[in-house]
Amino acid sequence: MGANRHTAAFQGEPGAYSELAARKFLHASVRPVPRQTFDDVFRTVKAGQAKLGVVPIENSIAGSIHKNYDRLLKYGLPIVGEYHLRICHCLVGIPATSRRKIRVVASHPQALDQCAGFLSRLNGGVAEIASEDTAASASAVAKGADPTVAAIASREAARQYGLKVLATDIEDDPENYTRFLFVARRAVKPAGKAKTSIVFALKNVPGALFKALGVFAERDIDLTKIESRPLVGTPGRYRFYLDFRGAAADADSRAALKELRRYALDLRTLGSYSAHSIPRSA
Amino acid sequence: MGANRHTAAFQGEPGAYSELAARKFLHASVRPVPRQTFDDVFRTVKAGQAKLGVVPIENSIAGSIHKNYDRLLKYGLPIVGEYHLRICHCLVGIPATSRRKIRVVASHPQALDQCAGFLSRLNGGVAEIASEDTAASASAVAKGADPTVAAIASREAARQYGLKVLATDIEDDPENYTRFLFVARRAVKPAGKAKTSIVFALKNVPGALFKALGVFAERDIDLTKIESRPLVGTPGRYRFYLDFRGAAADADSRAALKELRRYALDLRTLGSYSAHSIPRSA
Repeated sequence: MGANRHTAAFQGEPGAYSELAARKFLHASVRPVPRQTFDDVFRTVKAGQAKLGVVPIENSIAGSIHKNYDRLLKYGLPIVGEYHLRICHCLVGIPATSRRKIRVVASHPQALDQCAGFLSRLNGGVAEIASEDTAASASAVAKGADPTVAAIASREAARQYGLKVLATDIEDDPENYTRFLFVARRAVKPAGKAKTSIVFALKNVPGALFKALGVFAERDIDLTKIESRPLVGTPGRYRFYLDFRGAAADADSRAALKELRRYALDLRTLGSYSAHSIPRSA
Repeated sequence: MGANRHTAAFQGEPGAYSELAARKFLHASVRPVPRQTFDDVFRTVKAGQAKLGVVPIENSIAGSIHKNYDRLLKYGLPIVGEYHLRICHCLVGIPATSRRKIRVVASHPQALDQCAGFLSRLNGGVAEIASEDTAASASAVAKGADPTVAAIASREAARQYGLKVLATDIEDDPENYTRFLFVARRAVKPAGKAKTSIVFALKNVPGALFKALGVFAERDIDLTKIESRPLVGTPGRYRFYLDFRGAAADADSRAALKELRRYALDLRTLGSYSAHSIPRSA
């Protein structure tokens, strides 16, 4: 605690959506610790150089980020929280520009893709430039100081790099949420309604999954996520990501997990944490 | 049939991984129909301008591509086939260059990310440039004719743009597969072992999923994929993607789907097709 009480490591440049998620989650001042890679984020937390690490785990458009599930297993850092961040893309440019001057727009290809409709209507169509991430594109626009060039990034990235917001909520699909997980060196006792994330493997015999889910159903334990992922090296074997309501230490959960071990291989609990529900659409 | 017997519409530039998947799937000459967006791919097939459309639906690293599930529902074109393509990234440059001359590497950010280890070791580290897609980066390298600049793309993209392959299999994780689906205007009767993809919604009451899966378990119908996706506008309601072995027209499948309608909302069959299993790791 103490000096690194509010430190949060994230992948990307200052102004990235991960940093924004950390600010929302902590409701307070956060000392962001930018890192170049996701592995660096986990290593930073493991080494005690940041109290929390924040990583995206799934997006309502792009799906689950399997590599970050792999990293949760590899580094063994418990999940201590989650946050669903609504991704609101903005068109941002230098202070001396205006929307009608823009001819070129830079951003991560996924962000450009998510704003395709807006971009096709902007000044009769604009040239697109791909960049490593949204915050990096905002940083580049600030450095370039060209009034015809804008970036797609968050409002916070615009503030970070002294840019003007030329348009907000420019994404085609407003139901664009990213779920971020927070990891720490030590598990926490969840406050309020808890949620637990587990990972396990099953041999693909008919009914194996049905039996596995039965251990939750017969205890009225609600599932909030289930996803199968084929294990490439071992045909016919699947890994499952499963989230359920309740803490792993609850009596019902403990009984369910004990029974699940009879069917599942490599059952791992990734953590119990306070559940953050997805807000209703605007 | 006739003139557009082997036409396949895909998103991207010539040499894209989608085009490669179409070539592998058809075992034969294919007349590729490149389109700028995924919506264009579906519209092209719907209008009869291509016999097949090919779209990526999930990747072993990046997860399910929810937007393409949405498009399957929106356009109502049946799935008629699938193909699991191993993604083999190559470093490609102009014929007059060699590996040790490369100082800059361009590609889609995901491809750059998947080759991070290789790039950090290449000539003591190189500058990275983001591009819209892997094939586009190969095309740009060919046009630029700079011996210090290379792209990360497929071997087929290198051939397409007259580039030299400087290194192969440069991805950090060789278990990088993309599952492509093929859609057509009309459903086909699957040859050999069939697989069926369905989508349905459930109210998130404890045990609802357990009951839904029971209709398959009690008939020994094997599941090959299950994934929940929270529906953002309606908290507590989930959409499920489920693949099972067998054709929808099989007696067992028909009975299971009939019973499933008692629990599920908006049950839709996306198609029955021949199953293509994921190859074992090399």
